Amino acid sequence: MSELRKDMVRDNWVVIATDRALKPNDFPINKQGIQNAEFNGFCPFCEGNESFTPEEIAAYRPHNSRVNSTGWQMRTIPNKFSAFELNGVLKKEHNGIYSSYNGLGKHEVVVETPQHGKDLPAYSLEKIEMMLNMLKSRYNELSKDKRIKYIHMYKNCGLFAGASLGHSHSQIVGLPLVPDENRGIARYFDVTGSCLLCDIAEQEIYDCQRVVFKTAHYVLICPYASRFAYETWIIPRKHTTHFGDIDDEEIGELAIVLKYYINAMMEVLNNPSYNMVFVSAPVNVECPSEAYHWYIELIPRLIVTSGLEVGTGYYVNPVAPEISAGMLKQSLLKGFKKQ
Amino acid sequence: MSELRKDMVRDNWVVIATDRALKPNDFPINKQGIQNAEFNGFCPFCEGNESFTPEEIAAYRPHNSRVNSTGWQMRTIPNKFSAFELNGVLKKEHNGIYSSYNGLGKHEVVVETPQHGKDLPAYSLEKIEMMLNMLKSRYNELSKDKRIKYIHMYKNCGLFAGASLGHSHSQIVGLPLVPDENRGIARYFDVTGSCLLCDIAEQEIYDCQRVVFKTAHYVLICPYASRFAYETWIIPRKHTTHFGDIDDEEIGELAIVLKYYINAMMEVLNNPSYNMVFVSAPVNVECPSEAYHWYIELIPRLIVTSGLEVGTGYYVNPVAPEISAGMLKQSLLKGFKKQ
Repeated sequence: MSELRKDMVRDNWVVIATDRALKPNDFPINKQGIQNAEFNGFCPFCEGNESFTPEEIAAYRPHNSRVNSTGWQMRTIPNKFSAFELNGVLKKEHNGIYSSYNGLGKHEVVVETPQHGKDLPAYSLEKIEMMLNMLKSRYNELSKDKRIKYIHMYKNCGLFAGASLGHSHSQIVGLPLVPDENRGIARYFDVTGSCLLCDIAEQEIYDCQRVVFKTAHYVLICPYASRFAYETWIIPRKHTTHFGDIDDEEIGELAIVLKYYINAMMEVLNNPSYNMVFVSAPVNVECPSEAYHWYIELIPRLIVTSGLEVGTGYYVNPVAPEISAGMLKQSLLKGFKKQ
Repeated sequence: MSELRKDMVRDNWVVIATDRALKPNDFPINKQGIQNAEFNGFCPFCEGNESFTPEEIAAYRPHNSRVNSTGWQMRTIPNKFSAFELNGVLKKEHNGIYSSYNGLGKHEVVVETPQHGKDLPAYSLEKIEMMLNMLKSRYNELSKDKRIKYIHMYKNCGLFAGASLGHSHSQIVGLPLVPDENRGIARYFDVTGSCLLCDIAEQEIYDCQRVVFKTAHYVLICPYASRFAYETWIIPRKHTTHFGDIDDEEIGELAIVLKYYINAMMEVLNNPSYNMVFVSAPVNVECPSEAYHWYIELIPRLIVTSGLEVGTGYYVNPVAPEISAGMLKQSLLKGFKKQ
């Protein structure tokens, strides 16, 4: 089990594992560089190794193969090293000036493919749609549990994006609190009565300076205040509060956008590590649905944060988003023409 | 020049280089791993290469050698790739829903030694005192400029801590805004009328669970809500608002504490990359001096942040600080006994 402890200086919460501890030699980074976490070539996510993972929660098994056996195309399993457990209720404890919550929540892993070494840029469009449908169904399923207040979905790809396993996967965390990280969205709505993401999409389409691409349902931009070099957001053009509300047509178009965009990013940046992060509305919390608008952040990890970011929270981005948008756009258009 | 752009989702500021841009191949991380930024073995911080750095701001030259020539023990120079310029006044600009400030500020580098490859654990106590005196004098000097509102001092050591050069150095940034990152300190004072750091030090000394070491002037703890595994804070036991107010006796003791603590951390964690961050009070801003209390954060960088940290702002720490404090304490005591 773990605790959510209040970081009183940052006025934020930290998830602390209290029952087990990584030993100094267990960390993926050491003096020599980064150790690949795949233990002697053995990968628990590969087909045939299902018994090395916790029991599956959901799977696409087109030929109705047996649960937890081979013959799957995509599996969702509990994270074996989850810091969260969906057990009991959220309880706050006090210890002098400090406070903590129990680590209530759920952490799931979507193993996207039985094939080791294949990742998103090489997936077929059907495969990406399958992945988006799996995420949608897990989002909607998790949101039924009233103890969960925010569903965070993300993908770590590559060691510099924090991936501990090379086998392609994405992750879903059901949190017992709403992170304060995206507080600007609610504050903007409080002040203006408008949806921040709708207003950003509108201004970017009008300005045209930071637009990477536009489709019927999405606009891709390098955000005005990108924290990371070449950071790109995929914003649905229709105001939609929850990712779980995405429809089949929107999923089909998002699969195309993701495939072509990520291939363009891979080309421009020479196959970087990257994070894909879904930002969505809180769940099971009273909040105005007009304020929240789901979108995706695609974040290449080209720079290691230094004592400046760690200490001040100010990111330094050495590439103006106006420049990165132009480069990504060019490569994306080339990719579409090749089609 | 650069801009401070408002990140409206995070309700924070991002420093964006607008006039030059790193090209995809200029980044220190690529597919193969991390490229060392030392260009073909040439290091601009080595003795003899003074002409490759901007002109020095301050230096310890014991034999009165010529400014910007050899014969120094420590030099402070402007950061050649500074995102900040101390020119004119702070101006806010609006662009539709967006806003930005000009990159007003100052970024200095302290080259701590003429010798390439020697770092803090190997410094003599006199050398560490010299470094602390240099930081103190630059802190006090920068704080005289009324346009500077926060002075952030830090050291990146190793590639996973964001160091772009291997030659030992620390950095000082004078910012035109007070970062919101440590907002908890002011909020705690508003609610309780007490200094958060004084109260943390008191509770930790009483609890004894997370204390690594105690001296006459300092207490070293692994903080209750450590964001990073084995994170350690050095808190002055006397309430002192600004690092610039440290006296000679306190500097002497801090040098001892730093030398022995960092050697212990190096031993326990097998020479990790780490950041050293000085947290201090705002300058040239009306704020209660009773609320702010400078301290040092020592942060080993053993894990790369993933889509969870990037998206939610919640850090996951796989080592309880109660455990890390015990391990660091043991190694530190062994180091003192060897003395």
